[in-house]
Amino acid sequence: MNWNKIHTLFRPQSVAIIGASRNPEKVGHVILLNYLNAGYQGKVYLVNRNADEILGMKSYKRVADIKAKIDTAVIAIPAESVPEVLEECGKAGIKSVVVISGGFAEIGNTKLQDEIVKIAEKYEIAMIGPNCLGVMDPRSRVNTLFLPMYKLARPEIGGVSFMAQSGAVGSTILDMISGEGFGLAKFISYGNAASLDEVDILEYLMNDPETKVIVVYLEGIKRGKEFVKLARKLTKIKPVVILKAGRTSAGASAAHSHTAALAGSYEAHEAVFRQFGFTIANDLSELLYYAKIFASESAPEGNKVVIVTNGGGAGVLTTDAIAGSRYLALADFGKQTQESLKKTMPPLVNIRNPLDLAGDADDGRYHDALMPILTDDNIDMIIVIILFQTPGADSKLASEVISIKERIEKPMIVISTGTEYTEMHKRMMESSGVPVYDSPISAMQSLEVLYRYYLYKNHKGQ
Amino acid sequence: MNWNKIHTLFRPQSVAIIGASRNPEKVGHVILLNYLNAGYQGKVYLVNRNADEILGMKSYKRVADIKAKIDTAVIAIPAESVPEVLEECGKAGIKSVVVISGGFAEIGNTKLQDEIVKIAEKYEIAMIGPNCLGVMDPRSRVNTLFLPMYKLARPEIGGVSFMAQSGAVGSTILDMISGEGFGLAKFISYGNAASLDEVDILEYLMNDPETKVIVVYLEGIKRGKEFVKLARKLTKIKPVVILKAGRTSAGASAAHSHTAALAGSYEAHEAVFRQFGFTIANDLSELLYYAKIFASESAPEGNKVVIVTNGGGAGVLTTDAIAGSRYLALADFGKQTQESLKKTMPPLVNIRNPLDLAGDADDGRYHDALMPILTDDNIDMIIVIILFQTPGADSKLASEVISIKERIEKPMIVISTGTEYTEMHKRMMESSGVPVYDSPISAMQSLEVLYRYYLYKNHKGQ
Repeated sequence: MNWNKIHTLFRPQSVAIIGASRNPEKVGHVILLNYLNAGYQGKVYLVNRNADEILGMKSYKRVADIKAKIDTAVIAIPAESVPEVLEECGKAGIKSVVVISGGFAEIGNTKLQDEIVKIAEKYEIAMIGPNCLGVMDPRSRVNTLFLPMYKLARPEIGGVSFMAQSGAVGSTILDMISGEGFGLAKFISYGNAASLDEVDILEYLMNDPETKVIVVYLEGIKRGKEFVKLARKLTKIKPVVILKAGRTSAGASAAHSHTAALAGSYEAHEAVFRQFGFTIANDLSELLYYAKIFASESAPEGNKVVIVTNGGGAGVLTTDAIAGSRYLALADFGKQTQESLKKTMPPLVNIRNPLDLAGDADDGRYHDALMPILTDDNIDMIIVIILFQTPGADSKLASEVISIKERIEKPMIVISTGTEYTEMHKRMMESSGVPVYDSPISAMQSLEVLYRYYLYKNHKGQ
Repeated sequence: MNWNKIHTLFRPQSVAIIGASRNPEKVGHVILLNYLNAGYQGKVYLVNRNADEILGMKSYKRVADIKAKIDTAVIAIPAESVPEVLEECGKAGIKSVVVISGGFAEIGNTKLQDEIVKIAEKYEIAMIGPNCLGVMDPRSRVNTLFLPMYKLARPEIGGVSFMAQSGAVGSTILDMISGEGFGLAKFISYGNAASLDEVDILEYLMNDPETKVIVVYLEGIKRGKEFVKLARKLTKIKPVVILKAGRTSAGASAAHSHTAALAGSYEAHEAVFRQFGFTIANDLSELLYYAKIFASESAPEGNKVVIVTNGGGAGVLTTDAIAGSRYLALADFGKQTQESLKKTMPPLVNIRNPLDLAGDADDGRYHDALMPILTDDNIDMIIVIILFQTPGADSKLASEVISIKERIEKPMIVISTGTEYTEMHKRMMESSGVPVYDSPISAMQSLEVLYRYYLYKNHKGQ
């Protein structure tokens, strides 16, 4: 599928909302408000068979009645009317459509679905859906999601693109991303994948310069061979994090019932994912952890990790996590670092990895501890544990970590666990590009996938 | 150690704060405020060598100067003065002490530590510490923690008791518990465990009727034989969740450096934990997940789980999690349930497990779906997935789940993932006794440990 056509889904100069409605209960109403109120800068045309005016705006009976050129259409009308409207879109030269409407293959109505696919093919329309939430692009403010704003927070602009067949999983992930510091590039919930499928969307994202990381929730793959062919190229260009549902036969059967996806053998899928350097997540939280590490960190020079902490126990747990990893190792301090730490650390601090700065450590002690580490070639990655419950940890310390992060090349992440006071500092650090994890295990797993991906990408084998 | 003596740590009629201070920078100041301002109902005596009056209250030079009977003392003075003061406590008939002060075995000063142990033994004082945060009891408002209130939220009253050597891990866990619906019975950070150790504290909690669940963060065990002897009895009485740090040799070495704990072989520890039905957690988040399930749920009749969801993808992921469990199984609906669901569910809902109620499901549809399940003997445990991002999910649905929870015997938990809107409903449900998990995997793991613990307890073998 033509890249530029798909791109009009996200960057249309003009959009027709077919099924636009004045009734707040209708999907076509919520979508209309998305375009009117959220800062979308293109032209918006309303189409409704039964209205001449909606919310004070002119409404057209048919797409054909609009004389201007239209890039894309969002279709939110009963399933049986979709073919007719899609024909009209084709004739009007519309390049792409999102079919929000349900009532196709997911309820056994494959005939109707085949019909709209044929129409899309005839007019070479890039079609997302049917039975989907559609697309979101925080840069252009395009947003076809028919979910009320108060139900899920919307993410900031960023470099992570997310694709999912499932609308509910998609909206949950969007909501979760909004609580993290990294932002969104593109979001696509593609539902039944009747026309554009995994392969088309992945190919689009692969060539999208705004997308730094691709995150995929998948129930099934339609075109296996093409997927494998693409997979080979994909991860050489950017990291792909994937969560494949239906790994058990019971799960696969439930997936089939959900999106009529042919789940296939999970083992076969996983083998392909591993062979081509995909990062495999086992649940939604791992999907987020890994998206976060790829969004902010670049390739580490090696696998040696140092741990700097203000909590002894947390240091021990993190040491266990790193030492238990098949891929990471604990770093030894270089001579210069040792000398420097001996000078700057109070006598109670044991010069070893993990470096336990003690519960009264403040921004000054963290600064002194981290400075020699930044330039120590024996250390490839840094874990900074900050327990904000301790007496010395406050906003000054968070600022110090942010300012160190700005002058460092090697991956550096923070572990902080807690509620309000901790969350406040987590947001502060994440909005300045410091990824914060809530547990030693999630931090370890994230550094592990970072290390492994770049090992793969740089041809050093796995 | 005498149970009643240890009990005075949590329920003293009177307390002496030794090292009470008017200087806000001092530990003895924070602790004093804890007793004065947080609702503690007993008598508070201040002791300070250099003051006659602190914050308008009379201060005594020595414990001996106080003529009244004192149950317990909190000691926050320089290490070298502790022996002398402890002698005075003994002579005054004080039953228990918390030694907050650091500067003992953890920095190699074993001689000074041995000295205070001998004094405690001579006077049969129940001594917690040294080098610890001490104790907290939300019922009596006893609180020896010298951490400012704004740094960590304090948990509600409840049935989970938590013990940790590490102060920082302890305070992190306290903070995390405060974000959950279940509350705290007793908290003990016991530091160097010079006198009262794991075995004493576990024995106390085993016999504490307010403690329903014991949660332990452990770096090492001092008295192996006694621990094993106690372990045999302990889990027959109440569930014990344990996180043992130092599972790798690097971690064990770091633990030794931290609390001078002899970590021993993790495998040997784990074998004992498993043999005696302890629930093993692998990180702090699992510690919380498992505490939550034991705090609210009782024994399931069997291992058959049903999944009711408003998100198809979340249903698939949860099906994968349950089907992938070695201990749990997916339930089949009984005939009556099938008949009932056929009548009440809309045609699009497939009558199967997972039961996907679709994205527009509201409180009424969840009610109709759950009612027959409650009395279905083929179903032992219920997972209710609520994605609050979907159109039909709101506070009415949360209320409905709460009201169903009130009339049900079998374990029932919720999975909800999201930010503000979801968190609001999570708090609403958890404060009414409905445990809420944020991912399929944590929900599955929690039901698994619940099932396994009661299998062990009821002698059905593992």
